[in-house]
Amino acid sequence: MKPPKAFTDLRQLSTEIHQLCSVQSLLHWDQETYMPSGGIVPRSEQIALLSELIHERRTGRKLKSCLEKLVSISTGKLKVKHLTKPQQIMVREWLKDFRRHNKLPAEFVKNFSQVTAEATQIWGSAKKENNFKIFAPFLDKIVKLTRQKAEYYGFEEHPYDALIETYEPCMTARKLETIFDGLKKELMALLKKINKAKQIDNRFLHRKVDAAKQHEMGELLLCELPMESAYTRLDVSNHPFSIALHPHDSRITTRIIPNQFMSNLFSILHEAGHSMFEMGLSLETWGTPLSEPVSLSVHESQSRWWETLIGRSFPFWKHFYPRLQKVLPTQLKEVSLDRFFRAINKVSPTLIRVEADEVTYCLHVILRFELEKDLITGKLNVHDLPAAWNEKMKQIFGIQPKTDREGCLQDIHWSLGDFGYFPTYALGNLLAAHLFTAFAKENSDWESQMQSGDLSFIRDWLKKNVHQWGRTYNLEELAKHVTGKPFSEHAYCAYLKKKYSEIYKIR
Amino acid sequence: MKPPKAFTDLRQLSTEIHQLCSVQSLLHWDQETYMPSGGIVPRSEQIALLSELIHERRTGRKLKSCLEKLVSISTGKLKVKHLTKPQQIMVREWLKDFRRHNKLPAEFVKNFSQVTAEATQIWGSAKKENNFKIFAPFLDKIVKLTRQKAEYYGFEEHPYDALIETYEPCMTARKLETIFDGLKKELMALLKKINKAKQIDNRFLHRKVDAAKQHEMGELLLCELPMESAYTRLDVSNHPFSIALHPHDSRITTRIIPNQFMSNLFSILHEAGHSMFEMGLSLETWGTPLSEPVSLSVHESQSRWWETLIGRSFPFWKHFYPRLQKVLPTQLKEVSLDRFFRAINKVSPTLIRVEADEVTYCLHVILRFELEKDLITGKLNVHDLPAAWNEKMKQIFGIQPKTDREGCLQDIHWSLGDFGYFPTYALGNLLAAHLFTAFAKENSDWESQMQSGDLSFIRDWLKKNVHQWGRTYNLEELAKHVTGKPFSEHAYCAYLKKKYSEIYKIR
Repeated sequence: MKPPKAFTDLRQLSTEIHQLCSVQSLLHWDQETYMPSGGIVPRSEQIALLSELIHERRTGRKLKSCLEKLVSISTGKLKVKHLTKPQQIMVREWLKDFRRHNKLPAEFVKNFSQVTAEATQIWGSAKKENNFKIFAPFLDKIVKLTRQKAEYYGFEEHPYDALIETYEPCMTARKLETIFDGLKKELMALLKKINKAKQIDNRFLHRKVDAAKQHEMGELLLCELPMESAYTRLDVSNHPFSIALHPHDSRITTRIIPNQFMSNLFSILHEAGHSMFEMGLSLETWGTPLSEPVSLSVHESQSRWWETLIGRSFPFWKHFYPRLQKVLPTQLKEVSLDRFFRAINKVSPTLIRVEADEVTYCLHVILRFELEKDLITGKLNVHDLPAAWNEKMKQIFGIQPKTDREGCLQDIHWSLGDFGYFPTYALGNLLAAHLFTAFAKENSDWESQMQSGDLSFIRDWLKKNVHQWGRTYNLEELAKHVTGKPFSEHAYCAYLKKKYSEIYKIR
Repeated sequence: MKPPKAFTDLRQLSTEIHQLCSVQSLLHWDQETYMPSGGIVPRSEQIALLSELIHERRTGRKLKSCLEKLVSISTGKLKVKHLTKPQQIMVREWLKDFRRHNKLPAEFVKNFSQVTAEATQIWGSAKKENNFKIFAPFLDKIVKLTRQKAEYYGFEEHPYDALIETYEPCMTARKLETIFDGLKKELMALLKKINKAKQIDNRFLHRKVDAAKQHEMGELLLCELPMESAYTRLDVSNHPFSIALHPHDSRITTRIIPNQFMSNLFSILHEAGHSMFEMGLSLETWGTPLSEPVSLSVHESQSRWWETLIGRSFPFWKHFYPRLQKVLPTQLKEVSLDRFFRAINKVSPTLIRVEADEVTYCLHVILRFELEKDLITGKLNVHDLPAAWNEKMKQIFGIQPKTDREGCLQDIHWSLGDFGYFPTYALGNLLAAHLFTAFAKENSDWESQMQSGDLSFIRDWLKKNVHQWGRTYNLEELAKHVTGKPFSEHAYCAYLKKKYSEIYKIR
């Protein structure tokens, strides 16, 4: 049966919005890769114009009038019959977006983006000069605006719920607290054991590798990954990122640091994971919520899957390491696979989140979660942030930054007004490990299969179990759907304990 | 005095249209340079969407209602006082655009673009297979649609007038005939003399140069040109092009053919000429007609200026040749400057327009002009085009193509429906030489200045005399304004006669 006209109209409008978002993505991609430096001012204006066009369509009368014909905007009850199940999900998600996009007054959105644009500049200077004081008044303004934002969005229990919803629709502060408390305990216990074990020497990973060699390594790795080369490309940028215009045009970047050549490879694995997710979204429903990643956490589960569960696993390197050795004979000729594998999995508390290993990474996230929650409620004053940060670092990691640059100024997120974003980094890790239990059960020979070098069975599994669903399931539903078990931190903790007990020979 | 609100509103709308055009330009640039091949289908849809948004704004009620408050749409008489001269020119050009954009019915535009999109594909196959017959029915359809287009636009004397107006607003078929008849006579006479002189041996220009060396050559040349490096970049594409998003983001591409290394350098000079024009447009009036290139011919005058008048001149190579020799020692070490200079200026009839020298180039254009005019009037039937083409080749050049691939199928333009475009290639050459007379008069020491290697005085002159005007003057007005003399073919003919008499030692 043909869907009603309001449905096809809405679908067309939704596709147009997606196309405009794709165009905007290209503007961002170009800005980070090839744009002449002088092009920045007109580029900001182009991006602002696209934002406006997108916002107009998302909140406009046309969308509302189509939506109203299909569903009650207040109750969410469908007004039309004969919609297929996938079509019903589209309507459900369109409604969710419409409600959310209409909650913030245009004036507020404009003000928020002006304040954060300036704050991001100031944060850059503050970090460079290691001067928290110049950033503090801006952060204070952002915190206040963020509280207001939470009010606009509305919440039942905690203002933080309204913030996290943007990035992870099914989460709340309370749920996060439960998960993170358990996780924190387990990770700190594991870290304590590792700290007592004999430490790994990974100094050979800091041997210098020039840009040309690093390009060669990167292309070699990309060829090993089960991605269609016609749908992607690899470039270099200051910060690695992935950006998808469409399942058939999904690009990644990496960064090149001469004395940290593994950073290049892990960045590629991470971004390729994001990219494969976007490539695996449904082509037939492209332009609708069924072909959109459901949340940042689910996205992150895919990048961390490839970066850590695969990319830091022994079977992966069993196949790839001899190939890497050929490209880097000077650096790796005398290093055995076993020594290399242990080196890339060295666990050691760091001051910087993005340099953290698998065991400590989520602890960095939890630290930020605890602090930003307190900033939002007012329990923590912006001016006391550096001290609170350092105190928590000491409690959790046993180390303290000497400068705010390596402390509370290290991440850009708060200057962008992205409160509620950090937890998704941890949730992604937990979900990846949670899903992996089902993968390993269905593919009991995954380790020997991987050693053959053909990784396509992994992507096929992910496509079928994760990528194809788009926004059909939220994180919790997806976790349950794939594994039969409710989402929790248990799988991740079990994975880490098993892996690092072996590596550090602890029990 | 502050301009009326309708004026500022219109200016804002005009700027928005320009920004959307810039975004569309980036989509094209990316498609030709870095886009993954699989991205072509979504890219076409993105470009189509942008076209629609641009067309909506150009023909929409908002623009019309602002315009109506400023000027009578039928008579062009201004309704408001106190507009400055530049503001009056903006209104004049906005009106011109509005009238033109409203002349073609939306249905016709859609049909035209569908037919030409398919025809371009078919032309590609026809050229590859050297099979004019499969292209003929499409060309026939395009010719009929183009006649209809001329009717929609309207014309007084000749349907061709309506077509050329898109590309060169001040030209008509009659004016072109007068200019081209004189030009043809002079060029054929000069060619005859050259054909009798001793031919130049330029075989060393076909020595192989690998891609890495060609990149090095390209970057070396780019550094010599008086362009701000922060506002431009050089990439490689199948066909060289230039694309400007803004005066501060104006990019060029070149192509690399191993045994034609000079093609790389001349492409860069050509595209840099286009690019410097765009960089020289006014920043203050960006987004209005005052900061738009007035026509394709004027644009082409700038590219040919740098490619030929400068780039094939002796003083330029006096400075640059020793530098090039250093990059290409194997290929050029034993070649003297004098021999090199004569080689890059070798004149010899070719079958292919884009490979033509300065003397024969315009003859290729005139051939196309004569044929397309006859196609439009119906004097020439599409099925007789190959024979007519070959006949004209014989008359003008004394050579004939063995295949249509090297004959009437060589250029993409007609498949795109671009009738009236070719003449601008010739007009650009004529205008460049015409303007150069004034430049040389004002800079009597230009030859010795150029030999020093600093070319910025040339760009400064062009900026002041050409670039800054935007659409203030049309081609004829600009020619008169700069030189005091009416536009004609004389300067170009005089330039060629002087230069090639010396090179070929004829009189």
